[in-house]
Amino acid sequence: MQIKGKQWRTIWLEPNGSSIGVIDQRKLPHKLTSQIIYTYEEAATAIQNMIVRGAPLIGVTGAYGLMLSLQKDASDEALEKAFSKLLSTRPTAVNLGWALRRIRKLVKDLPREQRAEAAKKEAQAIAEEDVLMCEAIGEHGLKILQQISGCESYKDQKQPLNVLTHCNAGWLATVDWGTALAPIYKAHRAGMKIHVWVDETRPRNQGASLTSYELGCEGIPHTVIVDNAGGHLMQHGLVDLVIVGSDRTTKKGDVCNKIGTYLKALAAHDNSVPFYVALPSSTIDWEIVDALNEIPIETRSPSEILEIEGQLINGGMGKVRVCPYESRAFNPAFDVTPGRLITGLITERGVSTSNELALQKLFKHE
Amino acid sequence: MQIKGKQWRTIWLEPNGSSIGVIDQRKLPHKLTSQIIYTYEEAATAIQNMIVRGAPLIGVTGAYGLMLSLQKDASDEALEKAFSKLLSTRPTAVNLGWALRRIRKLVKDLPREQRAEAAKKEAQAIAEEDVLMCEAIGEHGLKILQQISGCESYKDQKQPLNVLTHCNAGWLATVDWGTALAPIYKAHRAGMKIHVWVDETRPRNQGASLTSYELGCEGIPHTVIVDNAGGHLMQHGLVDLVIVGSDRTTKKGDVCNKIGTYLKALAAHDNSVPFYVALPSSTIDWEIVDALNEIPIETRSPSEILEIEGQLINGGMGKVRVCPYESRAFNPAFDVTPGRLITGLITERGVSTSNELALQKLFKHE
Repeated sequence: MQIKGKQWRTIWLEPNGSSIGVIDQRKLPHKLTSQIIYTYEEAATAIQNMIVRGAPLIGVTGAYGLMLSLQKDASDEALEKAFSKLLSTRPTAVNLGWALRRIRKLVKDLPREQRAEAAKKEAQAIAEEDVLMCEAIGEHGLKILQQISGCESYKDQKQPLNVLTHCNAGWLATVDWGTALAPIYKAHRAGMKIHVWVDETRPRNQGASLTSYELGCEGIPHTVIVDNAGGHLMQHGLVDLVIVGSDRTTKKGDVCNKIGTYLKALAAHDNSVPFYVALPSSTIDWEIVDALNEIPIETRSPSEILEIEGQLINGGMGKVRVCPYESRAFNPAFDVTPGRLITGLITERGVSTSNELALQKLFKHE
Repeated sequence: MQIKGKQWRTIWLEPNGSSIGVIDQRKLPHKLTSQIIYTYEEAATAIQNMIVRGAPLIGVTGAYGLMLSLQKDASDEALEKAFSKLLSTRPTAVNLGWALRRIRKLVKDLPREQRAEAAKKEAQAIAEEDVLMCEAIGEHGLKILQQISGCESYKDQKQPLNVLTHCNAGWLATVDWGTALAPIYKAHRAGMKIHVWVDETRPRNQGASLTSYELGCEGIPHTVIVDNAGGHLMQHGLVDLVIVGSDRTTKKGDVCNKIGTYLKALAAHDNSVPFYVALPSSTIDWEIVDALNEIPIETRSPSEILEIEGQLINGGMGKVRVCPYESRAFNPAFDVTPGRLITGLITERGVSTSNELALQKLFKHE
């Protein structure tokens, strides 16, 4: 997508072919900077510290990380070590393991001297596929937005369509386009009037910092709200639909996504507001049956709650503390939204109802 | 309640009888300071700027504010002017209008020279009644906690009872004891093992700053969570019950409380977790029929969302900004929880189911 007229992706192979560049998302929206990653250890740190984040993007970063490792040491031992290290960085999103396994499976049966090059091509393929999947999600989602807006032509559209989203499932969470935001970008570019309610998404505020930044760059009207406000807006008819992303989707159609997604799904259900999840098939976990009990939910540092980071009045970055110094905090990063609360899953192959049969039909017929 | 061994109330008549003292709640938990209020205009500012907050406490502050006005000018015109000014400070909590009308009704038929003294006595009575109502709420709520803990004796209690609360409905929201927290204080003092999940309560973080401060002062174990986390905790059986306060309760048993309460009620309902609202009868609005459409919901400044205030590393207070400078925000301060989602209303007269008949039976039989 564009930032001030320049085309960006969140991650790219540097021209030398032996390092990767990423946008440092911890600095947004205040500063747009990129970081060069030279080793798989640096890739692991970038995922862990959330320099890069978002299920699809951490998958691609993991794939490139394995490539960087193989460029230095293509032995089986080094491969396994890098694989384990990268896999351990964040437990919940399934894309990471999916991308790492894809690279490992491919290179394992190759002679060592061919492994690094094969990994590079595969990592690039994963990145390109992600862009295509996200753009396809955008196209399928656009049809839903058109349908809900009820207008044959955008010229007839009197009121903007109000979409609520949680966290950041925009292009910053992927390589390009995004998942939940892709349909919104497509709609905006097609001329539809659209307005986005942006959940700030505590504790890391990815909505307030990243989603609002993305939407601002594209000139899409949006309003930041606290995570507490969505239910109230829905009760008053101010939300036409909800679209969120997914970190892991079970074959039954349950969705694990940023903490608080479940609460918004409950509110949407209670107010008959359509609730969609946009996801590339790389987030589908075909193994897991019981989402609530089997998906590992990452617990992050209490400091993310106890100290809030942002830009100080002097322009520098700083932290403020709201709680007493004695207070403890508990910081689970994801929750599970049962499929029964989801109107539809917007995938690169089309829209599926959130149950096993429908997902099987869309993805397992080949 | 006690702070470091000293007994405090949130508001008091100064010994001179012509000014009132309040705890400045904007400084908590970092600094405990009081402020002296000399005029009704200052009382109005204290309510508006949330030096004092919480439905019962703003009622008492309003009553004292009218007393301060009458001490300076006991004319009908001055009375009406002060009444209107104080009433306009915050629209949602019904206690403010209730307390103001109670004073006005009393003094209106008195000769001017008797008005100030009568208002003083009545304001003091309102404050004392609030303490008694809150303590009674504590006693009635204690029985519910005992019942849910399922223990005949606290010695048999193996695990602490996990209570989730939203915002601050503790003693800082009232004159003393609190509403939602009163049963917790009673239980803790009786020897029950209890642990409180404290919603941070964006945007003003009254949970993180005030509820955690109160609980810390009483030595009650508690853990701060983001507002997004409650549903996840309930899905995993980590919440035994929810207790919140109320800013306005309709005769049908619908509850208007801090924004986000509705989302927690939905999650409690979805997970069969008991959801209680603790309220003195001064928060009941017997006039309103349609809570969603008739209760005025205060919209506060977007800056409360866009800038987060707290203590800087250097110990001073400061603000950080998370959103882009171009972002807008919308800040409704309350939402409505329909009675159908509420297990019971804990009042000073006992526990009522959240419907008109039950509330009538408890309060309108005299």
